[in-house]
Amino acid sequence: MKRIAATIAITAALVSAGAALRALAQLPETTGDLPEVLAQLPPDYRDWKLISVAHEAGDLNDLRAILGNDIAVKAYREGTLPFPDGAIIARLAWRYTPSEENDKAFGRQQSFISGPPVNGVQFMVKDAKKFVSTGGWGYVQFDDGKPRAATVAQSCFACHQAVEARDYLFTRYSP
Amino acid sequence: MKRIAATIAITAALVSAGAALRALAQLPETTGDLPEVLAQLPPDYRDWKLISVAHEAGDLNDLRAILGNDIAVKAYREGTLPFPDGAIIARLAWRYTPSEENDKAFGRQQSFISGPPVNGVQFMVKDAKKFVSTGGWGYVQFDDGKPRAATVAQSCFACHQAVEARDYLFTRYSP
Repeated sequence: MKRIAATIAITAALVSAGAALRALAQLPETTGDLPEVLAQLPPDYRDWKLISVAHEAGDLNDLRAILGNDIAVKAYREGTLPFPDGAIIARLAWRYTPSEENDKAFGRQQSFISGPPVNGVQFMVKDAKKFVSTGGWGYVQFDDGKPRAATVAQSCFACHQAVEARDYLFTRYSP
Repeated sequence: MKRIAATIAITAALVSAGAALRALAQLPETTGDLPEVLAQLPPDYRDWKLISVAHEAGDLNDLRAILGNDIAVKAYREGTLPFPDGAIIARLAWRYTPSEENDKAFGRQQSFISGPPVNGVQFMVKDAKKFVSTGGWGYVQFDDGKPRAATVAQSCFACHQAVEARDYLFTRYSP
């Protein structure tokens, strides 16, 4: 009998945890439901091709890489605008870290490398119909592999609107 | 007769140009012959997976990405040392460029993006037997798609010796 009670309790906890995770994955109503790909970290995003790299100083204090799935990279390389549905862009970032080892090799202080991952992993996914109120792009940030609760879409879009002419993409492709 | 003389002159010029290109592709005797892969820019290197990113200030003044072919990335991810033959690492770099557009979005001066490509594209290729005198790695730099003349191998190796314990690789993998 104890075993049955424990099983029920565990099952309830798992159902509840599942609901919580689904809730976390949901963006504000204005963006509609998240597509499957943004409900969890795309399993292969770390294998995607490089679009460009950047350094954000200030509070962010990171070195970052912008990667794209095949649809996104093809669109970048061919100059396709707007980007086709299914394009996904990933932004990874690592702590901006001086490298004594490299400085020694160069004979001067000049080298900054990527330290531990910081500032989450952010994604933009194109679905012109689903994300019509945010320029056709859905936005989500993952912290420690978990999608971040709501409001991300609107806060991201507020800035990305500035580059509407480039289909809301700040990053240009680096050859 | 004029046509024959012109043909001979053009043929001689082409043979001479070919010899010059082959000479350019050759590294110092101590490193042996270049493997086929380094005699020309690997056609697919821009599709390789990302290992890490860095910023070199000073005279280099670039943002750089380190990419690897599948053999190299697998070795990095699995912590394999020394790297197996066939591993190739590519270093791409672009001019470190302030972005007014991004700064406006962030509301402060903090953003540096990748400008035009600079400082060539450099490769390390592992062949423990062929490059025995430079730690098992061959080195080459391409400028505008052309391999740079000699001495690169020894000048690269002089610095990379400092990280012999990590199979001569300065760059660590960024997760």
